[in-house]
Amino acid sequence: MTIATLSSAPISEVISAFTEIVGPANALTTDGDIAPYLTENRGLYHGRSSLVLKPASTQEVSAILKLASETGTPVVPVSGRTGLVGGQVPREDGRDILLSLERMNRVREVDAVADVMIVDGGAILADVQKAAEAVDRLFPLSLGSEGSCRIGGNLATNAGGTAVLAYGNMRQLCLGLEVVLPTGEIWDGLRRLKKDNSGYDLRDLFIGAEGTLGVITGAVLKMVPRPRGRQVAYAGLASPDAALALFDKAAQRCGSALTGFELMPRIGVEFTTRHIPGVRDPLTSVHPWYALIDISTSDSAETAEAMMHGLLEEAFEAGLVDDAAIAASLAQQDAFWHLRESMSEAQKPEGGSIKHDVSVPVSRVPSFLQEADAAVHALMPDARICAFGHLGDGNIHYNISQPVGADKAAFIARWREVNAVVHAVVHRHQGSISAEHGVGQLKRDELAASRPAIETELMRRIKQAFDPSGIMNPGKVIG
Amino acid sequence: MTIATLSSAPISEVISAFTEIVGPANALTTDGDIAPYLTENRGLYHGRSSLVLKPASTQEVSAILKLASETGTPVVPVSGRTGLVGGQVPREDGRDILLSLERMNRVREVDAVADVMIVDGGAILADVQKAAEAVDRLFPLSLGSEGSCRIGGNLATNAGGTAVLAYGNMRQLCLGLEVVLPTGEIWDGLRRLKKDNSGYDLRDLFIGAEGTLGVITGAVLKMVPRPRGRQVAYAGLASPDAALALFDKAAQRCGSALTGFELMPRIGVEFTTRHIPGVRDPLTSVHPWYALIDISTSDSAETAEAMMHGLLEEAFEAGLVDDAAIAASLAQQDAFWHLRESMSEAQKPEGGSIKHDVSVPVSRVPSFLQEADAAVHALMPDARICAFGHLGDGNIHYNISQPVGADKAAFIARWREVNAVVHAVVHRHQGSISAEHGVGQLKRDELAASRPAIETELMRRIKQAFDPSGIMNPGKVIG
Repeated sequence: MTIATLSSAPISEVISAFTEIVGPANALTTDGDIAPYLTENRGLYHGRSSLVLKPASTQEVSAILKLASETGTPVVPVSGRTGLVGGQVPREDGRDILLSLERMNRVREVDAVADVMIVDGGAILADVQKAAEAVDRLFPLSLGSEGSCRIGGNLATNAGGTAVLAYGNMRQLCLGLEVVLPTGEIWDGLRRLKKDNSGYDLRDLFIGAEGTLGVITGAVLKMVPRPRGRQVAYAGLASPDAALALFDKAAQRCGSALTGFELMPRIGVEFTTRHIPGVRDPLTSVHPWYALIDISTSDSAETAEAMMHGLLEEAFEAGLVDDAAIAASLAQQDAFWHLRESMSEAQKPEGGSIKHDVSVPVSRVPSFLQEADAAVHALMPDARICAFGHLGDGNIHYNISQPVGADKAAFIARWREVNAVVHAVVHRHQGSISAEHGVGQLKRDELAASRPAIETELMRRIKQAFDPSGIMNPGKVIG
Repeated sequence: MTIATLSSAPISEVISAFTEIVGPANALTTDGDIAPYLTENRGLYHGRSSLVLKPASTQEVSAILKLASETGTPVVPVSGRTGLVGGQVPREDGRDILLSLERMNRVREVDAVADVMIVDGGAILADVQKAAEAVDRLFPLSLGSEGSCRIGGNLATNAGGTAVLAYGNMRQLCLGLEVVLPTGEIWDGLRRLKKDNSGYDLRDLFIGAEGTLGVITGAVLKMVPRPRGRQVAYAGLASPDAALALFDKAAQRCGSALTGFELMPRIGVEFTTRHIPGVRDPLTSVHPWYALIDISTSDSAETAEAMMHGLLEEAFEAGLVDDAAIAASLAQQDAFWHLRESMSEAQKPEGGSIKHDVSVPVSRVPSFLQEADAAVHALMPDARICAFGHLGDGNIHYNISQPVGADKAAFIARWREVNAVVHAVVHRHQGSISAEHGVGQLKRDELAASRPAIETELMRRIKQAFDPSGIMNPGKVIG
């Protein structure tokens, strides 16, 4: 087939040919059916498309991309649609068709001795976690959206979450990939090897490429031993400096048993206890900052218990912690985490919120916070800064709630202006303005402007080498 | 400058221009000075060259590669020259010049709070380990050649070693890179961030590319907390199956505290105790197989002690271990490891040895050993198989010593024939014939023949995108 679609939506012959690959029941063509695929959770992006395809196999994905290459039809791969940067949303001109992995949701194989499992690109994260649990293992990736996000998207965006400190990002949890290339060719890189130095690292190139180099249809994932012991504490602190010193002590004392270290400001605890049903402040005293400390041990519950008590005793003596609560039950452990995990949602009832997903070297977090706060307050003296996140990874969700009583639209209109001053501080500390959510549409141009020109040039050459006809998720990651 | 060198050695004007960049004292041009750079440890490869350049800075490396691009001069980057696959040896036609990082050997910066250090590409691994130790941290990469190998080469080959089980390969220990591209352009990717999802993963593409895409002149390396407790045991076992079951128990019980799990055959212990001065078998009883178990804990020596005793008790009860010795001192811990680490060297006095650096999924190690032994013995009934290695990573050094009294040259002449049958078993178990030593010249063509064609094609396109004039370490990794 050689029907050129140029800059218009695919014509009906092309749509028919695509439909034939998956069968009419798995090709959505009406506005009503397609609508849910055209937007994203926060409503920041809205696109248009005339076709959503739901292939059932790698071979069908291959046939779709082969036809897309031949007809010059741009394809947006769609996974769980929980992304926050517009990577899964088609462009507004209606040319893009969507390829959803939702029917490819199997856990193909679990090998508990080798500690690996092989899953489809459309497998839901929570199902993958359960499959590991069924063989007494842990698949450590843990995200707020784990009930609906899918592994293909987790890989395409190199997802992070709350367990990165001990177990790494998605990149560290993947041994091999199956990828359908833009031409329709299938790369079977489903290796389950812990060591394999046999050429260029294609796997890590597809991971984090946000579907611009190919479609991830399968993956070999690592499992780890299930921790036997766990303890969680919530500590009141005077400052980010105290939190950093406490983190350092915890890391040295607990090593890889330190599975979480989160920083939260007082205002975040106030928002959360005010707006999220059932959330209470575990401490009766009030503190400017809080740390959530999670320790998991492989041998026994007693070790986790002893480590946590030892750490907090030392921290009290050193004057780093002013008050602390250790969870007395599994339910309390969950409650401490629930407070932290609700912090983003708790900002909504407080009005507009301008958000940043940034990282800096761990040692720079206190300076970053101090300088960013000063810069934001210089712009908006009454802005309410609610900066929280994964201190142990240097990854801060630097969120700013509107001043009390301010006009939401007027506040949100200053998004870019606020971004600019916060990101300037990030750059000063050699940080990243895109720590874990990815690039998508949201950060494409700002990243291109801030990274070294040669880096964008190398990325462009890679894109050209993998996708010479430019049909894979165009407009995302690089322009 | 536009002097084409075509297929001949660089002419004298070109040599002068290169020499000017580093100064005459740092440009080697006599046969005697150059000779050490033309061969490798095992004597498998020997090349020719008329120039070795020793730049002192990233800027000098940049000037060299710019001139090399302009004059079409092929460049072989040289690091510690400890590689085992001929990646650092120039070709035999004498066209290649050598770029040695030996003068760029500084530890540029150490940040103990962020747990990172920045080092030159030519920094010696042992110096990097010491710099971490000086701030009470661990840089975990550990190799036999650590006294002379250099970080640039460790990165270019994604080095492994004995601590991969808990800490990962070099890839997992690096946060950022500084690379000089074949054009002479400098990519400053010296990021010290634990989380950064801001585009294609260039870092992991340079890591493991064996100097064919650019020269790694600097790196940001991760440090980890120094373990406070450590215990090492040496256990006698009936079979690789028992070793695998023991590994599984150890992994579940110790989690990331299991920092080493090595498998050794009786013949390897015999070779080592026979030929390596001071090495003794820690057990008085004789067993077909042995496991070396290393446990490191972050909190205290008592925890490591308790973990090891608990593990061995359970293993005895389950009938997995027939006898075991727990190191009673640091000296004994070192002695147990010395036995394992001498096993390769101990084969030399036994005559010729045909070697394989392979990996299979951990669960397949026993079947691999059984089938590979059968295949080798079918070819050579009296061959003495000495297969040992990193069971926990599925990485076996499958070495074969010549039959007693056989002719060494006649035995070695069968290298490829033996490789073929062993590698066939590796492929049957979805393994890798290049687990940790890399590709270089040694495995280039065999890998190209055994991997999917599309994978070699993608690698070629990447090479073309990064090095269009083909000057970077030509002939290595891909043809």
